[in-house]
Amino acid sequence: MRQAGRYLPEYRRIRERTTFLELCKTPELAAEVTVQPVDILGVDAAIVFADILLLLEAMGAELRFEAGDGPRFPAPVRTAADVDRLRRPDVEAALGYVFSTIRAARRSLDGRVPLIGFAGSPWTLAAYLVEGAASTSFPHLLAWSYADPAGLRRLLDRIADATLDYLRGQIDAGAQAIQIFDTWGGLLAARRWDALARPSLERILEGLPAGVPRIVYVRDGSHLLETLGGLPAEVLSIDWRVPLSEARRRTGGRKALQGNLDPCALLGSIAAIRDETARVLSEGAGGPHIVNLGHGILPQTPVENARAFVAFAQGVS
Amino acid sequence: MRQAGRYLPEYRRIRERTTFLELCKTPELAAEVTVQPVDILGVDAAIVFADILLLLEAMGAELRFEAGDGPRFPAPVRTAADVDRLRRPDVEAALGYVFSTIRAARRSLDGRVPLIGFAGSPWTLAAYLVEGAASTSFPHLLAWSYADPAGLRRLLDRIADATLDYLRGQIDAGAQAIQIFDTWGGLLAARRWDALARPSLERILEGLPAGVPRIVYVRDGSHLLETLGGLPAEVLSIDWRVPLSEARRRTGGRKALQGNLDPCALLGSIAAIRDETARVLSEGAGGPHIVNLGHGILPQTPVENARAFVAFAQGVS
Repeated sequence: MRQAGRYLPEYRRIRERTTFLELCKTPELAAEVTVQPVDILGVDAAIVFADILLLLEAMGAELRFEAGDGPRFPAPVRTAADVDRLRRPDVEAALGYVFSTIRAARRSLDGRVPLIGFAGSPWTLAAYLVEGAASTSFPHLLAWSYADPAGLRRLLDRIADATLDYLRGQIDAGAQAIQIFDTWGGLLAARRWDALARPSLERILEGLPAGVPRIVYVRDGSHLLETLGGLPAEVLSIDWRVPLSEARRRTGGRKALQGNLDPCALLGSIAAIRDETARVLSEGAGGPHIVNLGHGILPQTPVENARAFVAFAQGVS
Repeated sequence: MRQAGRYLPEYRRIRERTTFLELCKTPELAAEVTVQPVDILGVDAAIVFADILLLLEAMGAELRFEAGDGPRFPAPVRTAADVDRLRRPDVEAALGYVFSTIRAARRSLDGRVPLIGFAGSPWTLAAYLVEGAASTSFPHLLAWSYADPAGLRRLLDRIADATLDYLRGQIDAGAQAIQIFDTWGGLLAARRWDALARPSLERILEGLPAGVPRIVYVRDGSHLLETLGGLPAEVLSIDWRVPLSEARRRTGGRKALQGNLDPCALLGSIAAIRDETARVLSEGAGGPHIVNLGHGILPQTPVENARAFVAFAQGVS
């Protein structure tokens, strides 16, 4: 879960020399920050350093990251004509830097731990693209979903096609598992998630080559657990709101679960981190469990706290 | 749910002459916008026009509403010494304008519909006060909750004491029911909500005079339904994420339910609003149900759509 990042001094040193987008697009640096958490924290997998919104830029949407402001699309997509202007990218030409990062990270990891590739879900990418920026309520997106669901589905399908090209490219380059992040699916009631967010997500999951584990994360999706249990994916990643024992029951016990330590717990004492980790391990014990945070690590996390969590989870401390 | 507001031209005309805080503090105007939705939409109750954060200002925290920015506390409360500086206000002196608004609105309503008073939950007020502004993740608040839960509970208790004075004053002035808004309780897993948010909330609910219906709204609280079912309150207000039939089952069937039309549905067509309203009515049919939105009305809502929802719910159209 966003292992690399602002909490690592080694990352900040690199960021002093470059912008976020430049870092994503410079494979030797992106590979270096991809591998940092493995070297510094001892985690058991790496996830490629990239951003879910890069694909939309490759589809022709202008993307800006402004300091303190988060991502912005100055020309949001809100009409059928806007959708028509999005292209299906030649991912090798437009996103080859991600594939190069993956190849470089694989070389640097040299078989120590597996490397995970990733993408945003079509619903989540559409959320940013339609709204033009992050939001807490995404009124333009949701208004479109009520006023013209077929038009919005056309956008979602177009994003799904491009995503599938992009993820196949990541796998060809060496990604050994794929995680899909549905950051904003939790805005929808289950009935609407099934109708709006699910079809394009399933198209991606079903289109991936066999043998590559598929991980799906839906943030704030505790009301969606029953329907998530039926997704064509091997692993469901669960945020911190629901205990893994309940998540296992409500997803039908068919999936490996990933999660679900509250990232804020890493801001407490080492003793509290030990207790929380023990609780998550115990709640996850009813089936396959990949220990992880329930959401991205916070920038103010002390490195020694992140390291303590990893050590407790591995049972080496 | 925030009935009055920016979507009403009658409200915007008043706001052209005054700031948001001045409007809250001018009883004749605040009473006018309190009654507007009854006259314009035909709703079956009014809710006093005020803001949950006014109480914190009365406790000594400087509060600013800046255009486009939402509320801000320039001096956030983050230490025991900060908590000590908060005072238990003389609510008559500090918040008498709210009580005057209630008296004026009761006169203007003249028995047509009941008037609801309200407050924020201590957890939600603390969220804004500790963070200093709205946030999507509230890292300062949650870090405090892990590092020093007893210190944070002292803040919550202090807010609860003041809230109880404030709500008793609203009831004395003529409020006929009380709604408590827990906007940020959904950030917490149930175990943590019970430990952190629940005790101060229960103290308020149990301290209110008998005979005044108590309504509790927890936004994004679908993972909390089982524990919410045990609250000392007559009504639970449910956001749009979970069908009322499921909410009724998971809260134990002991409460009246309020909600839960998705506010974004009011941005669609009149036919879609009719369908959504019919669905909510049908899902709520297993027990007492107060038809309402699942969250505040959006500023871009067409007035005729809000009016159509009210008419469909009342069965007059």
